[in-house]
Order: sequence, then C-alpha cells, then structure tokens
Amino acid sequence: MAAPLDFYFDFSSPYGYFAAHRIDDIAARHGRDVTWRPILLGVVFKVTGGAPLPTLPLKGAYAARDVTRSARYFGVPIHPPSKFPISSQAPSRAVYWAQDRDPALGKRLALALYDAYFQQDRDISSPQVTADVAAEVGLDREAVLTALNDPVVKDRVRSETDAAISRGVFGSPFVIVDGEPFWGADRLEQIEKWLTTGGW
Amino acid sequence: MAAPLDFYFDFSSPYGYFAAHRIDDIAARHGRDVTWRPILLGVVFKVTGGAPLPTLPLKGAYAARDVTRSARYFGVPIHPPSKFPISSQAPSRAVYWAQDRDPALGKRLALALYDAYFQQDRDISSPQVTADVAAEVGLDREAVLTALNDPVVKDRVRSETDAAISRGVFGSPFVIVDGEPFWGADRLEQIEKWLTTGGW
Repeated sequence: MAAPLDFYFDFSSPYGYFAAHRIDDIAARHGRDVTWRPILLGVVFKVTGGAPLPTLPLKGAYAARDVTRSARYFGVPIHPPSKFPISSQAPSRAVYWAQDRDPALGKRLALALYDAYFQQDRDISSPQVTADVAAEVGLDREAVLTALNDPVVKDRVRSETDAAISRGVFGSPFVIVDGEPFWGADRLEQIEKWLTTGGW
Repeated sequence: MAAPLDFYFDFSSPYGYFAAHRIDDIAARHGRDVTWRPILLGVVFKVTGGAPLPTLPLKGAYAARDVTRSARYFGVPIHPPSKFPISSQAPSRAVYWAQDRDPALGKRLALALYDAYFQQDRDISSPQVTADVAAEVGLDREAVLTALNDPVVKDRVRSETDAAISRGVFGSPFVIVDGEPFWGADRLEQIEKWLTTGGW
C-alpha cells in the first residue's frame, strides 16, 4: 500500500474543519490512508509573520462570510463559534495521545473535537471540555486529563509543529501527498486529481 | 440584462492572470458581462498589511510551486516572469484609458498585457513595453504613451483602487457578483454555481 497522506490542521481553523470531513473519503477512493497531524498555527505564525483571520483588515470580514458560504457549498454544517480563534493545545495533545493508543480512535476523537467546536460551540481549548469530548468517544476521561499535562505529550505537539514548519507547512489545512504540498480546503479537488493521475 | 460582474485584479498577480482567461466565459454562459478593473495591490497592502507573495516565508515558496501547478491544472500556459512582482501602474492606466474609448478593446488589451507578462516575460511595468503591447492590439502607440502621463488617467487608477478597498477588495483576483464577494482563482467554480442558482 502506498504511503499515507499527511493531513496538517489546527483545531481553530474552519477550513481545516471542512477538510477533516472530506479528506479520508478522498484518500480511501484511491486506496490511501491519511495520517492526521494537529499543529499549532500560533507557533507557525511566529515563523511566517501570519496572523489569525479575524485580526486581518478586510480579509477577516471576507473570511467570516466565506466560511459560512463554503460550509453550505461543501454541505458541511457549521455554527460559527462564539470564541474564535482559540488555543488548540489541549485538543491537539489529546489526539496524539489517543492516536498512539489506537489510530482509528484518535481520528474519531479529532473529528468529534472539530464538531464540538464548529457545530456545538463548545470551547475545546479547555482541558475539561476536551476531556468531555474524549469521554464521549469512549476514552477514559481522567486518563485524558492526566495526558494533557504530560510533558511527553506536550513536547509531541511542539515537535510535530516544528516538523511541519520544516516541511513548509504554513497554514491549515495543509496536505502532503507523496511529497507534493497542497494548502487549503479549496485544493481538495486537485488532491483528488493528483491521486488519480499521479501528478500533472 | 443583469448587472455586469466586477473583476478586480492586479497585473502582477498570477492568480489574476488565470481568472482573466476564464471569467468572461463563465459570465457569458449565464448571459452576464464582466467589467475589468485593474487595481494596485501595493496600495491595498498599505491598508491590509499584506505583502507580495515572494516576500512571505514558506508561503512564497509554496505559491511559486502552486502557480505553475495551477497553470497546468487550469490548462493556461505560463512562463514565470524573471522580474516578479512588478509595478502595475502603466498597464492599469493603459487599460482604463482604452476601455473608456472601446470597452471590448480595453479588455483585449488587458488580456494581451497579462499574456505579455506571464507568457512572454515582457516587463509591462515599463511604459514603453505597455505601449508596444497596446500597439499590437491596434491602439496608437504615441497616444498611449501620452495617456500614461495624463494626470486624469493616473487619478483614475488610484480612485478605482480606493473604491475597490472601500468595497472590501484585499487581493487578486476578486470578483463581486450582485454584491457577493469572491476572492481567488479557486473560487471560479463557486462563482459559476452562484450565477446558476442565484446563491445558496
């Protein structure tokens, strides 16, 4: 089986949320798996000079409109969170910890966390809320809370983010297919074509 | 006939170049015309804090790759210019001046200028080169050179750019369809759907 796609995303990114709902289906149609890699865009932005969308003049207002319009276009439900953006450390830590135990469960948790934030307006930056969501997908709530404070788990999120930067990742979603980088939920059709044709 | 689409672009923008090759066909399929409005992204960036792609860490390298890959994806030829970005004042002035005389000719000139820059590596920031291209589409070379220094024509580019900013335009290409804003060559499919359905 060919190598999995690398799917980089930040839990505060609505475009990452859209991609999360579609990337596994796209990959599966071509017999490919996907490795989900949550990262911290705040750390990335220190390297790139980037900034959260709501802080950007003109672009911030456009993005707010584009996000709800794109949700309807993609057919993915969204309820714009009342707190945006948020720190994505707690959910990212939980996902790596869960993935190391059970990759499929880690992915289920990631999608449940994204839905909790972008559909149910739950503040997943809170370790308590992240642990609640983890419990809902079958993980042990107390074990998750302990993991969120484990230095090894904390370092993992930081090292995955650093590795992403060293691969050229500067935004969310960012997918790498056999070394080829694709940025944005609006590149999913190109990813599908790349998987079909092997490049063009 | 319904109102024309407003197509904002900067002559230094490769994504604007892609859209320039497709937007009229998309609009025509729905019985719509397009008003082409060259703007100066350098002026826009003073408001938004934006910067030219090649200056952006990580994103600049990605964009260079994405531009040639997108050209092949869209089936639009491109020869990445040796000088990039360039000042787009001369070609923008020429287009508004030509449009006021003959809208169809103005549009032909705009496309010829884009092709001169992105296919033939000609530096259209030079008034001489812009005048050469104008002559090739049938305009009077000396009249164009005079127009490029006409204060009224200069002010026109500036006032169109200011008007664009006041409508929320922050990048290129940027298309407004019946008040609805779309940013990016990757929103052309959404524009097509918007024209088909009247929104969603």
